[in-house]
Amino acid sequence: MAERSAVVEVRAQRASRPRVRILGIGMGPQHVTREVAEALRDADYVLAAEKAEDDQLLAVRRRIAADAGVPVVAVPDPRRDRADVDAMGDYRRAVGDWHDARVAAYEAVLAERGGTAAMLVWGDASLYDSSIRIVSAIASRGVVDLEWDVLPGISAPQLLAARHRLVLNDVGRPVHVTTGRRLQEEIAAGLDNVVVMLNRHLDLAGCEDWDIWWGANLGGVGEELVAGRVGDVLPAIEAARERAKAAAGWLMDLYLVRRPS
Amino acid sequence: MAERSAVVEVRAQRASRPRVRILGIGMGPQHVTREVAEALRDADYVLAAEKAEDDQLLAVRRRIAADAGVPVVAVPDPRRDRADVDAMGDYRRAVGDWHDARVAAYEAVLAERGGTAAMLVWGDASLYDSSIRIVSAIASRGVVDLEWDVLPGISAPQLLAARHRLVLNDVGRPVHVTTGRRLQEEIAAGLDNVVVMLNRHLDLAGCEDWDIWWGANLGGVGEELVAGRVGDVLPAIEAARERAKAAAGWLMDLYLVRRPS
Repeated sequence: MAERSAVVEVRAQRASRPRVRILGIGMGPQHVTREVAEALRDADYVLAAEKAEDDQLLAVRRRIAADAGVPVVAVPDPRRDRADVDAMGDYRRAVGDWHDARVAAYEAVLAERGGTAAMLVWGDASLYDSSIRIVSAIASRGVVDLEWDVLPGISAPQLLAARHRLVLNDVGRPVHVTTGRRLQEEIAAGLDNVVVMLNRHLDLAGCEDWDIWWGANLGGVGEELVAGRVGDVLPAIEAARERAKAAAGWLMDLYLVRRPS
Repeated sequence: MAERSAVVEVRAQRASRPRVRILGIGMGPQHVTREVAEALRDADYVLAAEKAEDDQLLAVRRRIAADAGVPVVAVPDPRRDRADVDAMGDYRRAVGDWHDARVAAYEAVLAERGGTAAMLVWGDASLYDSSIRIVSAIASRGVVDLEWDVLPGISAPQLLAARHRLVLNDVGRPVHVTTGRRLQEEIAAGLDNVVVMLNRHLDLAGCEDWDIWWGANLGGVGEELVAGRVGDVLPAIEAARERAKAAAGWLMDLYLVRRPS
């Protein structure tokens, strides 16, 4: 299904060794670096996943590609079975199947088309992004003789820090980057200066006296910022989450929480 | 001393409200984002510290400012007393004095000159950088009625990850960012996926079986990369540190260490 659709969009065969460049585009066109802009202009096409539902990230990628004069090859994303994903026992298997299906779909395009494909990563590929694993898996399989590299982009924690004019490590402190799902166990382990990404719900029980710097949809439609003592600002954050989601149709929020010293 | 020198360089008085824009420039001109390039072009001058010794970071800033057609106001950096800094008891006082002197020197330039000053931060202002604290202190003092903001830049850990084609958080793991001085105590506390910045010496005792992804002078002269099992590659890293320092005249290295899962 994914393969057939991708092949339909292929217009020209290229003989050159396939190459993938994973390009961090930050939180929007304003964050595109000089080297990423050049790499994008030199690419033969942008390889992008296309979700079944309304895909606003693909729309942003299409705009950036169009600005650079580069065509987009959209590969229908394998369906993730939400029931499996929500059942923790099957989580790894479901993610694994989804990962394998995506690898196969991208590999088919690269084998068919050759040339240099750019993959545009929201933020930076080094944090909670699957692009590197997918391309690395394609290279390991050896079906296509792939050359690939990664160019960095502005990540969400950096934009959060910039918007709040905040030094993530305070003065000489460490900073811990984790997911909402793991936050409570990490606080229990003594961590007290933590960036939290990938939240379904905010669970800040026990941190009422900590400071929080929170943001949603940073750099895009529905951007929201709230900072203060957790116990004081949680209702404002919940209201801002609703506003961001209503404005953009999606919500991507993150925050730094810090025990006062 | 700092104030007199800065005043000598001032050519035009401006009446507008002073504004400082802290601009992350990444690891070199290739990482300048679209919004940072625009902010720099619109600035009246670049405000930059000038160290007594051979200052290669200032040279890079001068090149970037010249490309943008913006003049540089160089403020001689207050001397740090190395003897104080090395004696841990006086460390905080010495850093505090140095910080206060820098605040006063920058404040004098902003009060005298007004207009929009750009401060070009190597990497990103959110990690182990003093620019935000300095500008925040100037704003708090209230001697100048300062408006200020921060734009993010590519940080060294991101470039390290990109060069090694590495996902910092592996699969769903947290990542901890700290300094070389704190590494051993953090490993003792159970952290096992750690980015280490600001190293005088490498102390990886007890981590011989961990994996390391190391880099020096990333994005610039003398760039070096080494990856492997700590126990196997430490001699290669020490040799690469020497090469980087010989090539560039300075050394800025960092690494990720990870306990194998």
